[in-house]
Amino acid sequence: MISENMKIMVGQSSAIRAMFEEGKRLASIYGAENVFDFSLGNPNVAAPEAVTRAIHEVADEPDSVEVHGYMNNSGYESVRAAVAEHLNRLHGTAFHQENILMTVGAAGGLNVILKTLLNPGDEVIAFAPYFGEYRAYTANFGGVLVEVPPKYPDFQLNLEGLKDKLTSRTRAVIINNPNNPTGVVYTDETIKGLAKILNEKMEEFGTDIYIIADEPYRELVYDGVTVPYLTKYYDNTIVGYSWSKSLSLPGERIGYLVIPDKAKDSELIISAANVANRILGFVNAPSLMQKVVAKCLEEKTDISYYDRNRKTLYEALTECGFECIPPKGAFYLFVKSPMEDEKEFVARAKEFNLLLVPGSSFGCPGYVRLAYCVSYETICNSIPRFREFADSLK
Amino acid sequence: MISENMKIMVGQSSAIRAMFEEGKRLASIYGAENVFDFSLGNPNVAAPEAVTRAIHEVADEPDSVEVHGYMNNSGYESVRAAVAEHLNRLHGTAFHQENILMTVGAAGGLNVILKTLLNPGDEVIAFAPYFGEYRAYTANFGGVLVEVPPKYPDFQLNLEGLKDKLTSRTRAVIINNPNNPTGVVYTDETIKGLAKILNEKMEEFGTDIYIIADEPYRELVYDGVTVPYLTKYYDNTIVGYSWSKSLSLPGERIGYLVIPDKAKDSELIISAANVANRILGFVNAPSLMQKVVAKCLEEKTDISYYDRNRKTLYEALTECGFECIPPKGAFYLFVKSPMEDEKEFVARAKEFNLLLVPGSSFGCPGYVRLAYCVSYETICNSIPRFREFADSLK
Repeated sequence: MISENMKIMVGQSSAIRAMFEEGKRLASIYGAENVFDFSLGNPNVAAPEAVTRAIHEVADEPDSVEVHGYMNNSGYESVRAAVAEHLNRLHGTAFHQENILMTVGAAGGLNVILKTLLNPGDEVIAFAPYFGEYRAYTANFGGVLVEVPPKYPDFQLNLEGLKDKLTSRTRAVIINNPNNPTGVVYTDETIKGLAKILNEKMEEFGTDIYIIADEPYRELVYDGVTVPYLTKYYDNTIVGYSWSKSLSLPGERIGYLVIPDKAKDSELIISAANVANRILGFVNAPSLMQKVVAKCLEEKTDISYYDRNRKTLYEALTECGFECIPPKGAFYLFVKSPMEDEKEFVARAKEFNLLLVPGSSFGCPGYVRLAYCVSYETICNSIPRFREFADSLK
Repeated sequence: MISENMKIMVGQSSAIRAMFEEGKRLASIYGAENVFDFSLGNPNVAAPEAVTRAIHEVADEPDSVEVHGYMNNSGYESVRAAVAEHLNRLHGTAFHQENILMTVGAAGGLNVILKTLLNPGDEVIAFAPYFGEYRAYTANFGGVLVEVPPKYPDFQLNLEGLKDKLTSRTRAVIINNPNNPTGVVYTDETIKGLAKILNEKMEEFGTDIYIIADEPYRELVYDGVTVPYLTKYYDNTIVGYSWSKSLSLPGERIGYLVIPDKAKDSELIISAANVANRILGFVNAPSLMQKVVAKCLEEKTDISYYDRNRKTLYEALTECGFECIPPKGAFYLFVKSPMEDEKEFVARAKEFNLLLVPGSSFGCPGYVRLAYCVSYETICNSIPRFREFADSLK
């Protein structure tokens, strides 16, 4: 028999993944070209050519033992130094290699930092809508995820709602900017407001509250928007990053944590996170891929591709009469369900081979998420189906 | 502040890793050629050339999105099918792709299966001496590691000791064959005895007890010894494997779990392990490397290199008067400490720049471990230092 905990988890297993599997099933019946799968954030843009070149170069490095071997559990020192310098150039920060811990993707990094920080019963705050896996990651370490309700209609951070949820048990607040599933980018003003509240509450409770900035979509922004770098706004910020989206490498599981010197108990957190990375079974981020990303720090995926998808789909859906949050980042559209129960809406869409994910998966019923990181052809071919679907709802 | 649990973990942090870091420190003082670091199981043999060729081939596959993208959390179906067929050819088993879950190394796999099986308070049995990380992996999920004392002098499994430790809370028994740290290979007879006891105890308690076979050293055997394949001896066996040692890829974090159909509740375990792999933050085994190992299933590292190290070091240490367990597998020598406190022995060895790991790290005080996966030159140059060390103890 499996554990009681896993019975629940299997029962609730990701609606996103379930829809992904359903998409493959439908494709086998109707043909892949007739199924419009907007369920999974799996980039459809190839990795930059520089990545492929870097893989060849690293594979041919003379010291194979070093390329494929163990290193410090936090990663190669040269790679960590390169990442720190890159961030300093971009953000005017002053990180050094000790602040960087290479991780098995952002999901690995989040688990490492939550293992490091949480005592059983500690609270972690997430702003709805949020990536549903945060709940499982928090539960892995006996933590409790506390939801702040959405802020309508702009889906910025609900700071008034936050005040009600902060307690002396709050250990961390997860900020996902740009946001999955809305595509909203939290503004400079929003982040300043967040920092102010957290500083006040830490004073009031006499506790340390950490921001965990989950930033896999940092580079995926449009219309010239900039994404505030949170360590500059709030000392106790730990950043989780992944190259999954920026270099289209989601399967490779490569990312990092930034644990700045300014964060409270920084040295202790750095050494504990190193141990957590090991004992959770990650051991270290994949070695060859560490060296590959270090050679590709200035590269990024073709954003214009996603931007065209974004504009085309947003325009088409709006024309069909659907109400969408205007997305400024990531590769998701968050659409208001015209039916009260958005799961019913998702089920009806599936009759048109349109695969969406219910907002309930993100703590935000009444909406659905579309991942537009698909081919442009899929976007274009889906539009007539969306029209038919919209007509069927009238 | 970090969590209470991590404070303890940081305090106890791996003596092996600590010695590895100490080795780097000493090398910076005395020169790398004058420090004889036998602390870490980091293969010194290059990966086979076929691995490098496979990396180039996979990197050049036309569908970059598929090579670096998400797949089913359990791994590419083609890779899992290839692994299943490979095992069937080797062992006459009847696995199919559903029985294989690709993991982030064996450490990742062990965490996935322990997450899947353990309720808080459940017991996991390990036979001393054992890889110390089993304790942390078990504690990650609220489990309790129960030690069976060593069986002297041959260090086979202490089956009489096992009987005393099995209870109705026993969920799993970890078997590491060939064994780290002794290099002993458990025989066919030992494994039959183990299976008999477990079957009897399951009957008695009315519970399911799983063997978790941790097998990263399976291919590293000498003198024509064979390693029993445990699924053929005991139905409730789950195998954890890694290519870290067999292909010298420890930094790449690539391995798999086998969950056979014959294991009790196999289907449920398979689907729960898939979810556990995702929510622990692994998500999936590194994608490119999955495809690489699938092309290299018939390859293995140069065993003759380790064999020469083994013979040379064993002979030299024995001549010096040290008492060693004759190793038949892996790349470790387990040496009896001539002093009662083996930590004192390790400290004295360090004065000769000989870096060893105390047996206490493996639940077996009174012994020390040497990892001989170093260069042959290191082995040869260390011998005069071992002689001096032995003389100093007289």
